[in-house]
Parts: sequence; C-alpha cells; structure tokens
Amino acid sequence: MFSKSTVKYIQSLQHKKFRDESNSFVAEGPKVVGELLQACIFNCLNIYGLQDWVAALHPAIKKEAGGRIVIVRDFELEKLSALSQPNQVVAVFEKKQSAHVAFEGKISLVLDDIQDPGNLGTIIRIADWFGVQQIACSLKTADMYNPKVVQSTMASLARVNIVYTDIAELLRKTAVKKYAAALNGGDLANHGKLAEGIVIIGNESKGISEKILALSDEKITIPRIGEAESLNAGVATGIILYALV
Amino acid sequence: MFSKSTVKYIQSLQHKKFRDESNSFVAEGPKVVGELLQACIFNCLNIYGLQDWVAALHPAIKKEAGGRIVIVRDFELEKLSALSQPNQVVAVFEKKQSAHVAFEGKISLVLDDIQDPGNLGTIIRIADWFGVQQIACSLKTADMYNPKVVQSTMASLARVNIVYTDIAELLRKTAVKKYAAALNGGDLANHGKLAEGIVIIGNESKGISEKILALSDEKITIPRIGEAESLNAGVATGIILYALV
Repeated sequence: MFSKSTVKYIQSLQHKKFRDESNSFVAEGPKVVGELLQACIFNCLNIYGLQDWVAALHPAIKKEAGGRIVIVRDFELEKLSALSQPNQVVAVFEKKQSAHVAFEGKISLVLDDIQDPGNLGTIIRIADWFGVQQIACSLKTADMYNPKVVQSTMASLARVNIVYTDIAELLRKTAVKKYAAALNGGDLANHGKLAEGIVIIGNESKGISEKILALSDEKITIPRIGEAESLNAGVATGIILYALV
Repeated sequence: MFSKSTVKYIQSLQHKKFRDESNSFVAEGPKVVGELLQACIFNCLNIYGLQDWVAALHPAIKKEAGGRIVIVRDFELEKLSALSQPNQVVAVFEKKQSAHVAFEGKISLVLDDIQDPGNLGTIIRIADWFGVQQIACSLKTADMYNPKVVQSTMASLARVNIVYTDIAELLRKTAVKKYAAALNGGDLANHGKLAEGIVIIGNESKGISEKILALSDEKITIPRIGEAESLNAGVATGIILYALV
C-alpha cells in the first residue's frame, strides 16, 4: 500500500525538473531494476514490486533493501508505472554524485548538446561496450536520468561516469588531445589506436558548435563511400570508438 | 482543395495494410519530399504544398510534377499531415518494384527481423553511407515505407535497393560468403576489407535466428572491452560495415 502522494511523486519523476528537485529517478522492470540493484552504485530509495518478483529477489539484496521494499498488487503497480505494460517492479533511486573528471591516460567522450534521450542511451551503452568510463556532457545534453535513457542503458548507466558541466571550460583546462567528429576532417581509417584522448560528438542536426570546434586539436571523419548525408550520432560514436580504442 | 476521401486516403498510409493495398506511401516536409523528387526513383502521385513551397520549387521539377501539385493552405495541410508540426508539404509516392537481388561482387546486408522502424532507417542510412546498395529483409522486418523510415532515411531510401523476401531461401541459393553478426564469433578487428560478402544482422532482442545462423559461413563479433551486454543493431551494422567495406 502507498499514498496518493507517493503516486504523484513517482509520476513526477518523468520530468527533469522534479528529478532535479528530489535528486532521484525512477527505473522499471525486473531487468533494469535488478541490474541497478546489483550494480550497487545508485542508492535505492524505494521498491514497489509484485509479490512474485519480491519473492524471487536475491536474499542478500532483499536483506539490504529491507524496509524499502513495498509489495504491491497489479492495479497498484499500474498507477506507479509509466510503461504501457507495467512490468513487475517500479523502483526509485538516488542520483549519484558525479565523480571528478580527469582526462589523462584514458579515452573519454564529450557530448556537445546531444538532444535525443534515445541517442544518449545508445552512446552510454557504446561507451560501456568499449570500456570508455567517462562522458562529459554539455549542460544542454539530454538528461541521463530521463526514463528512456535509464530503461535503455540499464547498468551501463552505473558503470560509466557521466558529468554535466560547461564543456568549453573543461576542454580549455586540459592538455589531452581533443578529436572532433566532423564531416570535413581527416580520415578516421588513417588513425591508429589511442591510449589517451577526448572524442567530441556534436548535436544531431547542428554538429559540434563553433566554440567547441575551436577548442579541438583535430577533426576526424568516418570515410564515406556512398551518398548518405550523415550518420546517426550514436552510430558515428560507435564507429569512432571501435577505430580508436 | 481536396476531398474528404483524399484526407482519409493519406491518413490511411500511416498503416502498412493500406500502403500495401494502394502500392503507395507518404513523405512530408521540404527536405524529404525535395530529396525524393530530385532522386527521380519513386514515381510521385500527388503533392500537397503551401503556396510558398510550390513557388520555390525547381522549375524542372515543377514542370514534371505538373498537374499533380495541389496548393493548400495551412489548415488543409494540418488535416493531411501526421506530424505534430506540419511542414510545408505532404506528398504521396508510388512504391518501387524491388530489383533483382544478386550478391556477387559486392557487399550486401541481410536483415533477419529488424523490428524497430527507427533501427531500419538508421541501417538504410548506414548502408548508403558505406556504398552498400542492397539490403534483403526477412518478411517480418519493419516496413521500409513506414513513415518513420521514410522521414529518417530521405533519399537513401531511393538509393539503396531494398527487397523483402524469404531470406533463408535467398541465402541457400548463393555461394557468396555469409557473415553473421553475433556475440560469440571471431574478432571483427582480425578481418581485412571484403570485396564481396553478405553481412547478416539479427533481431534487436533475439539476434539471428537458428535457421539463418545455420546458413551462415562465419560468425563475426565486435570486440568488447567494457561490460555492456549488447550494442544497438544500427550501431553494430555501422561498425561492421566500417571495418569490412
């Protein structure tokens, strides 16, 4: 059982404003919630799960989550869920503090206003696939706690350190080489693997802003053989990381 | 001006059943419609455009389209459009006949039940970027004439030959080498460029079906350095084509 204000609070987490105010976000479904609980990186605030889901929970997790687990019935879960087909559990997690950003000795991503949560989710999964553990996002980049991002990235969200900041200032302060993904740069295929570097990915329609471009050391381009005008931002990120990491 | 039945007909083209029955599909907005008109591959059946858009149309295209252009007003365009913000023009095109599929001497893609129109659109753009001119889709793959695919691929839709067919039968009949994108195959990075080959991409959640896997000659895998469980189907296609083409 839960109150009307709980329903209102959880529904409000669909919106960035309320996620920011409450410093929390929502995750749904046994796979996503299970992975986030196991990753132990986000502090779990509340779990609303069906009897069967709670019964099947790992004893260690159940013990740790303890009093924060509320067993709900189907019709109650429906009230809390934002999915068209509610799936066993809705959980609220605390956002994590962003760790300090250090570019030395590793490959990092910088996102300049990636707007679509779907693209952001794809990029986080790609980073996690290629072992890139740090993403610095411009302040206008889609929110990593947007439910679409949470549902699509699962535990990758916990494994990659994602920071929202003034990326121009951040780039100005570091001597690590900055590679801008652009349509008119040097051929990516001529690049060897990198041990250290910052890969900058731009907005879906505008690309990288002039200001950020001016701060980069080198433009890199995925060789085009056919005629398509552009590649999706996520696809471009995947190809560049495959080539450089 | 146009009749109520025109409105009904154009709205019906949001659904595959009616696209199949009428052998036509709809495209919207100056960029998409402009590119499709210029590509001259899809026969244009009707164009409903705002006065300004029609006035700015290239004289040669205007002459050719002739009587099929109807000038409409804002409130009329709204009735025809499926977009939340109707954008200057809605046009109906005839589907094209699929050309014959021949695998020899080139790189082709085979899609085994790609379900999401967004992913299909991304894959078509990637194919066009890398000069892959042929995609054979299983009969359960998303429809290439789905408005989401049309809007996101633009002229790539016209440049790539896309065929819907029994892909098992097609693969059985050819001796060209078949590469299956899988999670447990040989390292993609050990592969050189190919002059000829068929790259098979599987369903977003199930991967490539057993039946199709059994018909492939080699499994290839994108090397994983981090921990993400999988890559998006479009991203995987992009990386594989970058490496092989």
